[in-house]
Amino acid sequence: MIKGIMPPIATPFINDEIAFDKLGENISKWNKTNLSGYVVFGSNGESVFLTRNEKLKLIEFVQKNKSEDKKLIAGTGSDSIKETISLSNDGAKLGADAALILTPSFYKSQMKHEAFLKYFSAVADNISIPLIIYNVPKFTGVSIEPETVAKLSEHQNIIGIKNSDENIAHLTEIIHLTPPNFLTIVGTASILFAGLSAGAAGGILALANIAANECVQIMEYINQGKLEEAKKLQMNLISVNKAVTSKYGVPGLKAAMDLLGYFGGEPRSPLAPLNLSQKEDLISILKKSKLLN
Amino acid sequence: MIKGIMPPIATPFINDEIAFDKLGENISKWNKTNLSGYVVFGSNGESVFLTRNEKLKLIEFVQKNKSEDKKLIAGTGSDSIKETISLSNDGAKLGADAALILTPSFYKSQMKHEAFLKYFSAVADNISIPLIIYNVPKFTGVSIEPETVAKLSEHQNIIGIKNSDENIAHLTEIIHLTPPNFLTIVGTASILFAGLSAGAAGGILALANIAANECVQIMEYINQGKLEEAKKLQMNLISVNKAVTSKYGVPGLKAAMDLLGYFGGEPRSPLAPLNLSQKEDLISILKKSKLLN
Amino acid sequence: MIKGIMPPIATPFINDEIAFDKLGENISKWNKTNLSGYVVFGSNGESVFLTRNEKLKLIEFVQKNKSEDKKLIAGTGSDSIKETISLSNDGAKLGADAALILTPSFYKSQMKHEAFLKYFSAVADNISIPLIIYNVPKFTGVSIEPETVAKLSEHQNIIGIKNSDENIAHLTEIIHLTPPNFLTIVGTASILFAGLSAGAAGGILALANIAANECVQIMEYINQGKLEEAKKLQMNLISVNKAVTSKYGVPGLKAAMDLLGYFGGEPRSPLAPLNLSQKEDLISILKKSKLLN
Amino acid sequence: MIKGIMPPIATPFINDEIAFDKLGENISKWNKTNLSGYVVFGSNGESVFLTRNEKLKLIEFVQKNKSEDKKLIAGTGSDSIKETISLSNDGAKLGADAALILTPSFYKSQMKHEAFLKYFSAVADNISIPLIIYNVPKFTGVSIEPETVAKLSEHQNIIGIKNSDENIAHLTEIIHLTPPNFLTIVGTASILFAGLSAGAAGGILALANIAANECVQIMEYINQGKLEEAKKLQMNLISVNKAVTSKYGVPGLKAAMDLLGYFGGEPRSPLAPLNLSQKEDLISILKKSKLLN
Repeated sequence: MIKGIMPPIATPFINDEIAFDKLGENISKWNKTNLSGYVVFGSNGESVFLTRNEKLKLIEFVQKNKSEDKKLIAGTGSDSIKETISLSNDGAKLGADAALILTPSFYKSQMKHEAFLKYFSAVADNISIPLIIYNVPKFTGVSIEPETVAKLSEHQNIIGIKNSDENIAHLTEIIHLTPPNFLTIVGTASILFAGLSAGAAGGILALANIAANECVQIMEYINQGKLEEAKKLQMNLISVNKAVTSKYGVPGLKAAMDLLGYFGGEPRSPLAPLNLSQKEDLISILKKSKLLN
Repeated sequence: MIKGIMPPIATPFINDEIAFDKLGENISKWNKTNLSGYVVFGSNGESVFLTRNEKLKLIEFVQKNKSEDKKLIAGTGSDSIKETISLSNDGAKLGADAALILTPSFYKSQMKHEAFLKYFSAVADNISIPLIIYNVPKFTGVSIEPETVAKLSEHQNIIGIKNSDENIAHLTEIIHLTPPNFLTIVGTASILFAGLSAGAAGGILALANIAANECVQIMEYINQGKLEEAKKLQMNLISVNKAVTSKYGVPGLKAAMDLLGYFGGEPRSPLAPLNLSQKEDLISILKKSKLLN
Repeated sequence: MIKGIMPPIATPFINDEIAFDKLGENISKWNKTNLSGYVVFGSNGESVFLTRNEKLKLIEFVQKNKSEDKKLIAGTGSDSIKETISLSNDGAKLGADAALILTPSFYKSQMKHEAFLKYFSAVADNISIPLIIYNVPKFTGVSIEPETVAKLSEHQNIIGIKNSDENIAHLTEIIHLTPPNFLTIVGTASILFAGLSAGAAGGILALANIAANECVQIMEYINQGKLEEAKKLQMNLISVNKAVTSKYGVPGLKAAMDLLGYFGGEPRSPLAPLNLSQKEDLISILKKSKLLN
Repeated sequence: MIKGIMPPIATPFINDEIAFDKLGENISKWNKTNLSGYVVFGSNGESVFLTRNEKLKLIEFVQKNKSEDKKLIAGTGSDSIKETISLSNDGAKLGADAALILTPSFYKSQMKHEAFLKYFSAVADNISIPLIIYNVPKFTGVSIEPETVAKLSEHQNIIGIKNSDENIAHLTEIIHLTPPNFLTIVGTASILFAGLSAGAAGGILALANIAANECVQIMEYINQGKLEEAKKLQMNLISVNKAVTSKYGVPGLKAAMDLLGYFGGEPRSPLAPLNLSQKEDLISILKKSKLLN
């Protein structure tokens, strides 16, 4: 089962090539936490800038370097059903435990109920590992409706959804309409408390790259019924989360990693690293939240 | 203080004129509930279709017919600072306890931090009753940022915000950045559980027109720490709430009122009443939620 | 008939009150041009900040001060059918030749074909002057479809549409689907050449407040078949038009008026006048286009 | 030089595999027209559903089957600079004359001026054929500003832009800000007349798959100064163009091809072929425009 908190891990580059040694160092730090697993080449892994071969190498590398108790999920989806199946199965052979599959999105006006049913059913029928739907409207410009997710949750190889939307009503409705064992996963740390309170199974959170323990702690507090403590921790992380997602994106996340003892480095072009004044703003946000002294 | 659950009451019309007798009958039913007050001519009150004189008559009528324990809030805002002040003060004289003031929105690209500070400060300085900010992006096309709300919360006559957005991160950040006595009010029933769990002071909810007791019950369960019961009730109301808001809007709300023992009637033109198949869909949704037998 | 080029005239304020003397001076300058008329309280006239009484005074004043050959159009529309009819008829008594009626827009998701037919038919049936539809998606968040305009063009009191959208396909389709005597009016100077080439009857243009002769000249060149000259003039005005519309809005238009011999002054709050660096940018844009030496 | 009218050719499939024989038949028909060339795997070629290998085969096949006077452009862009360069150069070896490169778009909020400069410069520096920028906001959710295009037009290997937007002001401003030999290409047939009148160099038009002669004729009329004839033809094609683009998309285009003597066939899943009532609507639209008898 895939539950708990996972980071969609940032892909480190040096001179524009994947820096596997740095990735290994990051992983060894994360291995010591209670993260339940890792997502490779999600949106925060700069998936769209990676070649197919680089993606497979990442799966192989993380599989070898992660501690045994951690799960490994790979972001193998694209608009092409054929390529999605092929990459997912190749990833499975190298050790991926599940495939996180982005909604198709190029032909936006046609990506509705029927198209999503066809797409996800076709993929789920043909891949050897469980499928998790990935809904992220801010990047794709489309959104999958709760009714569609409900229908797809009947497929035995579709085990969950990562919903990267701050709309808690959307998330709650998905939880309400799907079976108890279907995994509804919070996709952004700003709604972790709210999502878990509503019954979500866990979180795949950019923030978990830099604040793994804090994210896990929120979940543990909730499981222990310590809601006030959970809420307080959540409140404290809101502005940090904004800084490494909507405000500064992947470059912000990587800069924060560099500041907090991980290797972040530069994003691949055309993304640009933070400039000086952005970095100062980030430092001040990290200090205010006590993540940085 | 203005806390708890309030309906933004639907304005009943017969032959296109306000049907005060029907409104009186609705109010006498709501008076028997634990609603904490009423909002007149909010978005669900068809405010934009009412004349200034009709608005003042509504305040006067509801003030006289509401039970003493209920508060009365009036939706007196418009883009014009001058007119907003004038209507709010005239409403105050007739018994409005607070003014719910919509964000100005016509010149969308300029309605940012500075403009909102100027607008709300100017209004709050000049009205004789407390001001509650009303943020409803789906109708206005603009949204007020948590940082702006934080700044405005320092004004002693600005006591709260109704945030009609399903983005729980936005709501949570407002709660986090404003003083404990600043009222953050949930603006749509679909996020009532999540919003109250995050620390919201109450809800102004279209759904409270037809399910006052259920909405109040969610709040009471949360206050009693009965989270599972609250969540269960919340889940059950999601699709009904969608039907009377995003799916069928004011015509849907009015049709539901007619089905559930209140007077709903027809909306003012150019809004159109539900057609037959929409009405049947609504009935089936109400039955599924057990609001209708 | 209402053809040719008209400015939606800016409303001048001094100490937040309408400065009728300054308006008179502006009008006397425009009277000497070949503008075919004036629009009072359109979007550029800060209509949403004006009281009903101020609007009627504006009609009365412009009617008295305009030269006889100019037409007078008033922006009398709002979401309320009743108020739209009332204001239009009161305006007609004071001299308005036609009413420019904004699409209703508050309940966005319901403002579709049927609602627009009902709204505009009801208004057109009950006002004593011809109705011109006003479609301006950037301010209203809704848009009226060409098919809907085609249907409305059958009403004998609906004589045209001002389409303030840079989508030339939308404008062309309206021209194609409506009778030859129906007036399709370009709503922004950036597409004046393209719109007139496609068969539009004229333009109601913010830019005509400051570049009346140039706008009229584009139209005359096209009527004379001097397309290259028209296009050259059009090209030269694009960045100026952007500066006084999408880039700096009404504050930009008013600043440009001050620079070019008209009275612009400050917009009403919460709009803010341009700051220094914005004003410098505007000056440089006006110089590049040779409107300013 | 790449001027004139080109279709972004639909990719025919039989049993989900590319039907090269059918493609050959289509090409032999288009070869007899005055189309100036072909675009392979543009948005209408279902590019996102094709594998890398299929794309290369398409280039090779079209190169061999097109008449000598036609140019061949390939839609080789993706968010990855590395992959874009690699595919463009492999395509060049197989006969592509130019590369049509989509704006990167995944990280929407960061895809602004600087990122576009970096992306397109890096690609243009490293590919062996000329680069044409491809701006299509409805699919990508981002748009490249005229100022950015102006800057990029200074690069000697960036020769033009296909602008698939109905905003004629945007297109006109690009023409105004770029050198005379920079190719501004209309990206949708609904604005062909307006775009060419404004100085565009040609059109890459979905509609040219089914109405090649008519599209070419509009251009020839304009070159001959026969504006009324051009406009009349343009008007007649508006609703057909809408049917095969915004209304029914690629499935609509393919259905129209089947009706008009070409092989269209079914789109790749998850796109679905038109249903019966959609097909009837399409037939009626084609008949009204006289493309179908």
